[in-house]
Amino acid sequence: MLPTPSTIEETLDPQNWDSFRQLAHQMLDDMLDYQQNVRQRPVWQPVPQDVKNFLHQPVPQAPQSHSQVYQDFVENILPYPMGNIHPRFWGWVMGNGTPFAMLAEMLAAGMNPNLGGGDHVANYVEAQVIEWLKEMFHFPAQASGLLVSGASMANLVGLTVARNTCAGYDVRKLGLGAAPKRMVLYASQEVHSCVQKAVELLGLGSQALRLIPVNDAYEMDLSMLESTIADDRQKGLNPFCVVGTAGTVNTGAIDDLQGLAEICHREGMWFHVDGAFGAFAALSPQVEACVEGMQLADSLALDLHKWLYMPFEAGCVMVRSKDDHRRAFSLTPEYLAHAERGLAGGSLWFSDYGVQLSRGFRALKVWMSLKEHGVQKFGRMVVQNMNQAQYLARLVDSHPCLERLAPVQLNIVCFRYNPGELDNSALNALNEELLIRLHESGIAAPSYTTLEGRYCLRVCITNHRSQRSDFDLLIVNVVRLGAEIALESTTAQ
Amino acid sequence: MLPTPSTIEETLDPQNWDSFRQLAHQMLDDMLDYQQNVRQRPVWQPVPQDVKNFLHQPVPQAPQSHSQVYQDFVENILPYPMGNIHPRFWGWVMGNGTPFAMLAEMLAAGMNPNLGGGDHVANYVEAQVIEWLKEMFHFPAQASGLLVSGASMANLVGLTVARNTCAGYDVRKLGLGAAPKRMVLYASQEVHSCVQKAVELLGLGSQALRLIPVNDAYEMDLSMLESTIADDRQKGLNPFCVVGTAGTVNTGAIDDLQGLAEICHREGMWFHVDGAFGAFAALSPQVEACVEGMQLADSLALDLHKWLYMPFEAGCVMVRSKDDHRRAFSLTPEYLAHAERGLAGGSLWFSDYGVQLSRGFRALKVWMSLKEHGVQKFGRMVVQNMNQAQYLARLVDSHPCLERLAPVQLNIVCFRYNPGELDNSALNALNEELLIRLHESGIAAPSYTTLEGRYCLRVCITNHRSQRSDFDLLIVNVVRLGAEIALESTTAQ
Repeated sequence: MLPTPSTIEETLDPQNWDSFRQLAHQMLDDMLDYQQNVRQRPVWQPVPQDVKNFLHQPVPQAPQSHSQVYQDFVENILPYPMGNIHPRFWGWVMGNGTPFAMLAEMLAAGMNPNLGGGDHVANYVEAQVIEWLKEMFHFPAQASGLLVSGASMANLVGLTVARNTCAGYDVRKLGLGAAPKRMVLYASQEVHSCVQKAVELLGLGSQALRLIPVNDAYEMDLSMLESTIADDRQKGLNPFCVVGTAGTVNTGAIDDLQGLAEICHREGMWFHVDGAFGAFAALSPQVEACVEGMQLADSLALDLHKWLYMPFEAGCVMVRSKDDHRRAFSLTPEYLAHAERGLAGGSLWFSDYGVQLSRGFRALKVWMSLKEHGVQKFGRMVVQNMNQAQYLARLVDSHPCLERLAPVQLNIVCFRYNPGELDNSALNALNEELLIRLHESGIAAPSYTTLEGRYCLRVCITNHRSQRSDFDLLIVNVVRLGAEIALESTTAQ
Repeated sequence: MLPTPSTIEETLDPQNWDSFRQLAHQMLDDMLDYQQNVRQRPVWQPVPQDVKNFLHQPVPQAPQSHSQVYQDFVENILPYPMGNIHPRFWGWVMGNGTPFAMLAEMLAAGMNPNLGGGDHVANYVEAQVIEWLKEMFHFPAQASGLLVSGASMANLVGLTVARNTCAGYDVRKLGLGAAPKRMVLYASQEVHSCVQKAVELLGLGSQALRLIPVNDAYEMDLSMLESTIADDRQKGLNPFCVVGTAGTVNTGAIDDLQGLAEICHREGMWFHVDGAFGAFAALSPQVEACVEGMQLADSLALDLHKWLYMPFEAGCVMVRSKDDHRRAFSLTPEYLAHAERGLAGGSLWFSDYGVQLSRGFRALKVWMSLKEHGVQKFGRMVVQNMNQAQYLARLVDSHPCLERLAPVQLNIVCFRYNPGELDNSALNALNEELLIRLHESGIAAPSYTTLEGRYCLRVCITNHRSQRSDFDLLIVNVVRLGAEIALESTTAQ
């Protein structure tokens, strides 16, 4: 079946390194320009139909020149980004990335190690980064940690360890069908959807996730939590875990983490915290009190590509008990056996602590960035974004046609254009259209959510390029577009 | 609690773009040199203790200059890679990456979009790449796909869809505790450990994974599979899925995929294929017959950072039924509601098809690389590696002190140094030491496995830089080191 060997041995390396190098420097210059001048461009613009057509072709059979491929990138891809590197992007929860971290990604891809295990330097870099993160978030030195793709995966890993540790039998071997009591866990109604996805993936079933009501500040109601746990015990269930949230995605609310830690301790339950972005308040001595209790978690999920401003992807999970963590994931077949010396030696086998066996060098950008700025500056940036949220809240509160819809606890401002005299359904339609026009204008990109039936513009500030003047511009344009749409609907009637 | 706003607004961008740009060009030149001259360096060298110490420090509080941070990288990190970009690295299953894909990673981190969803160009690039992959692997055009971190995640996603689709009830809501019949699935004894990890994560329990014996070529015994399924049905279990392997990690064996597809069709079971690296045989018309039947899979897991030579991380899962795929993962809370126009518009919401909500632009390197070389060249590279494996097998077979321990079906050669007169346990110890010395010499980096109790050197060729002369050098040094160790043990006795 196998053909006779050809005598020519090919490679995927450039045939002409000199011209390749020249193009590479052009690419680098272009990208630095792209970042340096981001403020001059629209935040976002729609992808034209001819670009969509260009990206709908059969697979290339023959090679194209490097310069042609790059030209295709420059013309069709570079102009139509999501926009999250822009100073006026405040949608969902996204960091900007930084130019230095971009270069770190190039270095990482050039070295291209696999951090699943083995004795090579990249694993030591990740171990160092995890040490640093434990220090930054006041986790004990003997805790374990793992860099992952993001908080969805970090929450999944944390909840896997929780499930396996608290099952009371060998759930890895026997599965959930063998559970003597049904396992249930708790989170607030504002918990991020990725927690539900994790619970479903783990085979617990979303019914096992009890959603506890929140107070007016969108924080979990602790007395409701306690009574629900008691009810569930009464029913013969196994309440094994509480998920606290440090920074809800809707409004940035932070659960009473200290209170949750005490309840978990008393009840003998696992305490997991989804700190995707809110956890980073811990970086500033000025504001760290708002996440007090987080350091008591049994497991903590973080997103470094959110409020540490790293480029995608960079999340982290920390687990207080390294043994529990390892027991939940370790599996070592013959072809992964660890050696005493050589490349297969060393004690850092990160694949024993998560889903991935092949793992990229995402640690490098974190390592280089924490050295570049020092952790104090990251703390100041977090406070700067919180101050900007307060600034924006004041702008909203002082304008007669704007209505704020939630308290500003952290870095999220939810509000709507409300000129009066419109019912809620009309306001929802108006604000939905307003947001779309704001995006289409290229001026600013908040996202949206719905709070108690009220559609709102949602400004989430995890942006190191925003300045207060950007929020002035936002308000001016929200009011302008709101009035424009309100007038159109009046005219149309 | 919140401090009064400072009047100075900071950013994480460089203060001096000109000197930053100069350093960036230096970094690029260094990395191109690093790749161009890789053949002149040792494959691997141990990480010195002082580097380990350097990577064990408290978190930096104050900033360091860009050039200082880069200098730290150059001195402490760059010299101690895993080695998989080297022409004589053949450990585990790892690609090299390419210089052009490295640059693509820089572009991706510079644009830094989030491919969870929304109407921006990066999502169209990923959609294009998935279209191409479906074409390359003969999957139907209406199938769905998702780029993921690697095959561990790709297998997890595929098996999640299988579990949820075949449960016969709403397993997302009710969990596995509600299963009327216990769900069981099948794979060969040679299946990759990540499949067991996925089964454990999903709450099925590793007991639910029936490991079917293999024949002399390490392929699943299909009659044993059929009788085990029949037995399990008899016992009142729910046999729901067969996992076929295209390229086992130990020896590169390929299950009879056509036969498995027929059994699954007859039995009404889900057919999942772990094609992590073996699937890429489909890229060459000369050898694609060996994975015949793979295109009939209900779900297929691939690793583009293996035999498509992409830098880490790049995996892909394809699912024949887009609806099944979406049903297993889609969850759309208010803050992720999809809009009609604007940034939150468009129909490409990849977060509905997997675990990750925030997703990086790994599609770009794949898109640029497939354009750079064309798919035919990738097919030729796969065949080149297969030919090199046959070449190495002949070198082993023709040497009196070398013993080949498994058939070479694809790109993996398992062998040991065997001078005769030693029992198996002595041979194991000798070859284990031999491999470590080979690593320590910096000459070549195979990995290892144990087949029927026999420790072997395992050469897995997914390397676009290897030449036949590299295998000559391997053999010379294996024989030299083997004789050296054998002599030492004789002398020591």
